[in-house]
Amino acid sequence: MSVDPAPTLPDDCAVSHKRQSDINQRFGRAVRRRRREMDLSQEELAERAELHRTYVSSIERGERNPSLDNIEKLAKALDTSIAGLFTDYGIEVEGEPESRS
Amino acid sequence: MSVDPAPTLPDDCAVSHKRQSDINQRFGRAVRRRRREMDLSQEELAERAELHRTYVSSIERGERNPSLDNIEKLAKALDTSIAGLFTDYGIEVEGEPESRS
Repeated sequence: MSVDPAPTLPDDCAVSHKRQSDINQRFGRAVRRRRREMDLSQEELAERAELHRTYVSSIERGERNPSLDNIEKLAKALDTSIAGLFTDYGIEVEGEPESRS
Repeated sequence: MSVDPAPTLPDDCAVSHKRQSDINQRFGRAVRRRRREMDLSQEELAERAELHRTYVSSIERGERNPSLDNIEKLAKALDTSIAGLFTDYGIEVEGEPESRS
């Protein structure tokens, strides 16, 4: 007799340690790239963004699925906008998503 | 004798019903504006994005703090990119964040 799986939480309620979705990896690489461009340490970025250093570290490794308000904090701490971060740091390389059928 | 508050979860682990941060409200309005432009119902958008209709509804009301992967799903379902959604639908009106001191 099969058992239905438990209902899953919406994604933004889930702790996403170790889950590495493509968009989270691309976001992490962009944060790292922009942080290094500004010659900031992870700790300095964390302070500017009012986030924890370990959280910034796991973001950069693509291990977190950041929420919109934290994305905004990081963009501001990196002296850019969310759109600027996504456009200029390779998160959405073509500036457009993959085509939908 | 005071008691330390419990450690809080990172924001992307928190259920954010009823919390209405500015960025979440601006994001919600942008999603609604683009959805209406495409003449989609909330249910149709939810189906395209593989999200629940009530989740899309609360996003549009600014009551949720969406995670990056759900932001990406919504942008794709709205036939745009994340940067496009943020640039073209008034989320970051000036294209830049408020200045930092």
